[in-house]
Amino acid sequence: MSLDGIDTPAVLVDLDKAEANIRAFQAYADRHGLKVRPHIKTHKLPRLAAYQVAQGAVGITCQKVSEAEAMVVGGEVDDVLITYNILGEKKLRRLRALSERIRLSVVADNLVVAEGLSATFRGAEGPLDVLVECNTGADRCGVESPEAAAELAKAIEAMPGLRFAGLMTYPPIGKPGAVADWLGRAKALIEAEGIGVPTISSGGSPDIWKAHEMPLATEYRVGTYVYNDGFLVGQGTCAWEDCALTVLATVVSVPAENRAVIDAGSKVLTSDLLGLEGHGRILGRPDLAIDQLSEEHGRIVSEGPVGLAVGQRLRIVPNHACVVSNMLDQVELVRGETYLGSTPVAARGKVW
Amino acid sequence: MSLDGIDTPAVLVDLDKAEANIRAFQAYADRHGLKVRPHIKTHKLPRLAAYQVAQGAVGITCQKVSEAEAMVVGGEVDDVLITYNILGEKKLRRLRALSERIRLSVVADNLVVAEGLSATFRGAEGPLDVLVECNTGADRCGVESPEAAAELAKAIEAMPGLRFAGLMTYPPIGKPGAVADWLGRAKALIEAEGIGVPTISSGGSPDIWKAHEMPLATEYRVGTYVYNDGFLVGQGTCAWEDCALTVLATVVSVPAENRAVIDAGSKVLTSDLLGLEGHGRILGRPDLAIDQLSEEHGRIVSEGPVGLAVGQRLRIVPNHACVVSNMLDQVELVRGETYLGSTPVAARGKVW
Repeated sequence: MSLDGIDTPAVLVDLDKAEANIRAFQAYADRHGLKVRPHIKTHKLPRLAAYQVAQGAVGITCQKVSEAEAMVVGGEVDDVLITYNILGEKKLRRLRALSERIRLSVVADNLVVAEGLSATFRGAEGPLDVLVECNTGADRCGVESPEAAAELAKAIEAMPGLRFAGLMTYPPIGKPGAVADWLGRAKALIEAEGIGVPTISSGGSPDIWKAHEMPLATEYRVGTYVYNDGFLVGQGTCAWEDCALTVLATVVSVPAENRAVIDAGSKVLTSDLLGLEGHGRILGRPDLAIDQLSEEHGRIVSEGPVGLAVGQRLRIVPNHACVVSNMLDQVELVRGETYLGSTPVAARGKVW
Repeated sequence: MSLDGIDTPAVLVDLDKAEANIRAFQAYADRHGLKVRPHIKTHKLPRLAAYQVAQGAVGITCQKVSEAEAMVVGGEVDDVLITYNILGEKKLRRLRALSERIRLSVVADNLVVAEGLSATFRGAEGPLDVLVECNTGADRCGVESPEAAAELAKAIEAMPGLRFAGLMTYPPIGKPGAVADWLGRAKALIEAEGIGVPTISSGGSPDIWKAHEMPLATEYRVGTYVYNDGFLVGQGTCAWEDCALTVLATVVSVPAENRAVIDAGSKVLTSDLLGLEGHGRILGRPDLAIDQLSEEHGRIVSEGPVGLAVGQRLRIVPNHACVVSNMLDQVELVRGETYLGSTPVAARGKVW
């Protein structure tokens, strides 16, 4: 089938490009002896998670229990790290059920979370692996110092039903040296207590090709690399040609000489700017800017004549691929200009 | 049931407040002899569309054919205006099928769209009502001048299968006088051709209480008024107490004295700022700011101690209610502090 059969707006995933992106980073990580644990938040598709594992990933990363549930249905993925403080009875019950089907690990950055996990896994067949999340400069979650990491590691190791499994961080972009210092100090403090640190998990797509500069990491979590996007092109991580996810849109109005309107607004492209100008790059027309989105409209403006006709179709690389993946119930799979059909976004909207 | 049974993050809709908002604007419009045609993009729920019609709305507004399909299932709504340039064979086929079940009208701002509609409705039992969309200053879609409106109206009236039904605009905020001039001139030009202008449809929630200042309008389209949000509070349209949609979130980490992290990120609150600072208002804690969102995390910062504990729940009024409605497959219905249960967001993600 050709792409002409796809109704717009649509999210297109070029499997040739996505698979090439997966293989390229796996090859790099293999060269540097680094395990790969892709974050599925970008694609949310079991088939791409299975491909990642088939190419050599040790397992996958999810942010939520419900995402993990959606990813392990097919049986190809049997090792999941959930990099989130899991709290609350319902989520903990689902986590325990999931742990009986696959190898599972989670993170914690505080005692309340660790105690909830312990209460849930006390009496389970084996202990739950818990990594301590470390704030190495991104200032989101994570214990604030190597000393605090060691203290929490010790507490976790002592809790029934849990086993301390290592350190996890989402490092600030471009500072591998400072991160290595931080994690090295935490590791030494924990080992001084006679506790092993089998895993140090780092991640982030902007710095994927510098992952080896922080040799302390045993594994690397990457999400956006599978599709790439305008943000990563801006960071120098990839080229426009490496972008596997595009939005297909139709021009529905050309009301003025230097303005046109497409049928993709914030319900598809999202309002994420990530510091960029405009709401995506129109392939083949770098002279045009999508300067404004409402929910169902994207406004295109140009300095000179816009040169678009009502009914014309455009492909757009969004600023941020992960959030676009979360907007529609299905994506359209393509290989180059061949349309393979649609597939449900299995982990879309999974926030629990 | 109490709200404690709701897993977070969740989108809560207080039906008491939503219904009061619906009644308040209906009463205002009734006083001024203005028909109300609510835009369902904000709630996307058939039950609230039915309530709007039961309170006196003449019908509803949708942006997409697929939204209209989702809204008319129950039979309570039988009059829909789709304020969108509808293009393409698939959408036109669905539009024709829909027209056989309900009273339907659409808009067009160009000949390509009008010709597609005509080709689809040629030979239908009755003509399709088409309003001409007018750009009265919002600079999105719409013909650019009263003269262009008259020309397109004349063309539509002459096309088989179509009937010119009036003028439609999404006016710029706060300029009712200029809009009245524009539409008055267009109306006069069209009537001079011997064509009637039965409907003039205006809309927009920020200016709802000034709708009567543009007396040329016969009907008014309103979306956000049903829930209200931080943007409308900022515009002076409503108070925080009138906000019917809130996000319920749990504090999952308090990593530093002046920082906490909640389990609602851009996958729930969205990145829409609409010119506001921060990503939503935490009810009861106006001293706190949500300064940063990642997909599953919202970061709360404070000048002094943040004063939050892991596990604590917060309710947040988002910047923009309509886009939040589109993020989760379900919303939780409440009346005050009583939890009624969840309901699917029937028109979520409907972009076709």
